[in-house]
Amino acid sequence: MGPIGIFDSGIGGLTVARAACDLLPNESILYFGDTAHLPYGEKSPELIRKYSTRIALHLLNSGCKAIVVACNSASSNALEQVRQAVGPSIPVIDMVNPVVESLYSGSQSSGSIGLIGTRATISSGLYSSAVNDLNSRGGASYSLKSRPTPLLASAIEEGFHNDTIPGAVLEAYLDDGYFDDVDSMILGCTHYPLVREEVIRLLPNCVDVIDPPAIIARALKTKLSELNLLSNSDDASNRFQVSDLTENFRLGAIRFFGSDIDLEEVEL
Amino acid sequence: MGPIGIFDSGIGGLTVARAACDLLPNESILYFGDTAHLPYGEKSPELIRKYSTRIALHLLNSGCKAIVVACNSASSNALEQVRQAVGPSIPVIDMVNPVVESLYSGSQSSGSIGLIGTRATISSGLYSSAVNDLNSRGGASYSLKSRPTPLLASAIEEGFHNDTIPGAVLEAYLDDGYFDDVDSMILGCTHYPLVREEVIRLLPNCVDVIDPPAIIARALKTKLSELNLLSNSDDASNRFQVSDLTENFRLGAIRFFGSDIDLEEVEL
Repeated sequence: MGPIGIFDSGIGGLTVARAACDLLPNESILYFGDTAHLPYGEKSPELIRKYSTRIALHLLNSGCKAIVVACNSASSNALEQVRQAVGPSIPVIDMVNPVVESLYSGSQSSGSIGLIGTRATISSGLYSSAVNDLNSRGGASYSLKSRPTPLLASAIEEGFHNDTIPGAVLEAYLDDGYFDDVDSMILGCTHYPLVREEVIRLLPNCVDVIDPPAIIARALKTKLSELNLLSNSDDASNRFQVSDLTENFRLGAIRFFGSDIDLEEVEL
Repeated sequence: MGPIGIFDSGIGGLTVARAACDLLPNESILYFGDTAHLPYGEKSPELIRKYSTRIALHLLNSGCKAIVVACNSASSNALEQVRQAVGPSIPVIDMVNPVVESLYSGSQSSGSIGLIGTRATISSGLYSSAVNDLNSRGGASYSLKSRPTPLLASAIEEGFHNDTIPGAVLEAYLDDGYFDDVDSMILGCTHYPLVREEVIRLLPNCVDVIDPPAIIARALKTKLSELNLLSNSDDASNRFQVSDLTENFRLGAIRFFGSDIDLEEVEL
């Protein structure tokens, strides 16, 4: 049956791996963090595609039965390329579509959706397309209000060492009230769930701040179930690979995944 | 005679290229920004060495007569490897030694030197070695007080779009008074000269905040003069290459270099 392959440019996708582990305890996970090339959020779409397909092929060649693109910059810019690279028999779960889909509450439904993410994620337009897809069903009318918050992912990583940093950065991005009239807010980067409480504090009480990793884990479970790919193994095990191993990354990984992990360096 | 090769992980080294252009108007410059792999400041020494030597060889093969490692993370971790790669006939100027050397004011001199830079720069220990070298001369006794400020470089790049960001980050790093007793402060990253005024504002008046690009340009001129490599050409021209070209980088490059430039994408 093989493990579930989950990849990100670095550490953020571990929030998704954590949610997948919690929901699917019988599944093994092979995680790959492309730390030699992180971050993806400011790189060109072409380069993000090159890096992402290379990792997807590595996960495929390592026997993975499904792939989770646990990076919004990669999901937004390289999803089709990853799907083509691994072929139609391997399900590929992205960070964008399941989250937008989860906001749909039936025909004639509507709402203003807020989105923060990297520059590569926002400028790709994939969230806009996903919202348009919702609206093409039964007269729903959702609108999207987005803003790139490119420094926030690095600020969150830096938060291990200096806890005033993420708050100062988040405030600089949100305190002008731009998002005060949205109904829901998508944390469009796998790092952001770590500052979800601060985002809630900085927005009006009525804004529903979405937690993507839990939604992605449920979408993964649904997809595996549909394809009859769920495991019932009692000896699931997880492996964590990175393309550049540093002590700083190891410390961050423990914080993101929530428990100690062994990291292995693999050059692609 | 060939151009002067100047490289950085990205955009910061353009502050050095600017200073070199101003001081040496008859020299041509070939600049390379490794934007496909930036930033270097959180990567492992081994990876920084691999990227740096590859670029140095590219500059050598492009006919450069001298190389400036205009990145403190690369200077601190890959200087010997770059020197070995290009051979003894090509002078290699780094960001660390000329700046520390400029603080020396004769035997028996002393002072407390502050340093901020990336994690890779600080943990390399190259600044400490350079200060120890000063102290081994004629009884000088300088001390070094350093702190990694890893988010600051990204915050400065982000400053093009959101001008509250660099100040908020800098304040979070400096406002505990850690550096209030130093005599001089080294801006140990090629991005930092762009926030020199804010650093001056956040430190006591008596702290001398050093401007490395001007010092590096003078060290380059001295070295070229010693080796009889100075050009007196009337048609000097500059070329700018990056390993990943984005519009965001182009806008930043204009700000860092201080005038419009043509960027060329080159895959190494």
